[in-house]
Amino acid sequence: MESDMCHRGPPGAAPTGRPRNAAATREAILGSAVNAFTRLGYDGAGVRAIAEDAGVTAMMVNRCFGSKEKLFAEVVDASFAPHTVVSDQLATLSRDIAKALVERTGPGADELSPFLLTLRSAANARSAETARQGIERHVESHLAGLMTGARTRERAALALSLILGVWLMRSIIGNTALVEADPDDLTRRLEDLLARLLDEPGV
Amino acid sequence: MESDMCHRGPPGAAPTGRPRNAAATREAILGSAVNAFTRLGYDGAGVRAIAEDAGVTAMMVNRCFGSKEKLFAEVVDASFAPHTVVSDQLATLSRDIAKALVERTGPGADELSPFLLTLRSAANARSAETARQGIERHVESHLAGLMTGARTRERAALALSLILGVWLMRSIIGNTALVEADPDDLTRRLEDLLARLLDEPGV
Repeated sequence: MESDMCHRGPPGAAPTGRPRNAAATREAILGSAVNAFTRLGYDGAGVRAIAEDAGVTAMMVNRCFGSKEKLFAEVVDASFAPHTVVSDQLATLSRDIAKALVERTGPGADELSPFLLTLRSAANARSAETARQGIERHVESHLAGLMTGARTRERAALALSLILGVWLMRSIIGNTALVEADPDDLTRRLEDLLARLLDEPGV
Repeated sequence: MESDMCHRGPPGAAPTGRPRNAAATREAILGSAVNAFTRLGYDGAGVRAIAEDAGVTAMMVNRCFGSKEKLFAEVVDASFAPHTVVSDQLATLSRDIAKALVERTGPGADELSPFLLTLRSAANARSAETARQGIERHVESHLAGLMTGARTRERAALALSLILGVWLMRSIIGNTALVEADPDDLTRRLEDLLARLLDEPGV
């Protein structure tokens, strides 16, 4: 019976109640894994601790996700999919991103877990590769898809580099000039830089 | 006698030959420490392994540098002081930085140890603070000192955020669009962005 626990059924299909339990188990493990990988990085996070935190056995984690690597890949997907800082409106894209970035790297801001996950993953070549795929598949392709003109991927990747760098310098390193900057001035400067990258030249 | 080994004399003063030995011992320890902290981060690097690698005892490391924290602070100073990517000419600053960044994050490039050191340090609050001081004291103040106009520190810090982000995305994460970008095109785009930050508006 337990071996069925983690088969993913079609969404909403819960004729016997069992698929809901399986989904809940997966979700509990995934939540615990997002937390562990974001805090500790790929090498630092342990499957046993992730299982314990989710109230299941390590065997159940492997049954649900196959391996630590595959679990990490799902964590990356879950973290990057919600488009944390990137908005959906082309017309206000640079402004929206600049505003969200300044707000979410300011004092008392949340920790922007996909960025932390990227940072912690960068130490290990294999997890850096998984993070690369997550960034390209979810964030970069979404951003590039909203853009027009030449080399949308390259311009989107440069915008993401700027976003990642500002987050790192302001939230994690705590750079004085960026922490103490006037939020409106900082937003304007970032909007200007992002518009150079995201808006089609000459339009 | 050994207790004198690590007193730093005035540069060049070597009347008895002893100060040269002390300097050489310090240098060997510092080289080993730069290597260890850059590869493993503050928490991962051990004083005993650093000592062993330099061919001295752990006690000698503490005699020369006081503590692991103080040793790390000197490592940060040694790593950031040489102005790795930032040039000295205001007129060609944006161009020089863009060119050096693209070259030094390309295939087969060196690892830009101060950036790796920053990345690895970001995991630990205390070493992140030391890295922050190193960046502000050496790189940001040098850059801001070359600039004119308002808010030079904020503009310099934003330029460093962009540099750090591009290095992270291109060298460490290996972002496809940035790895495969035409180097001249990438350099032009970065030069344009850096010029928006570094050049005085309206000049």
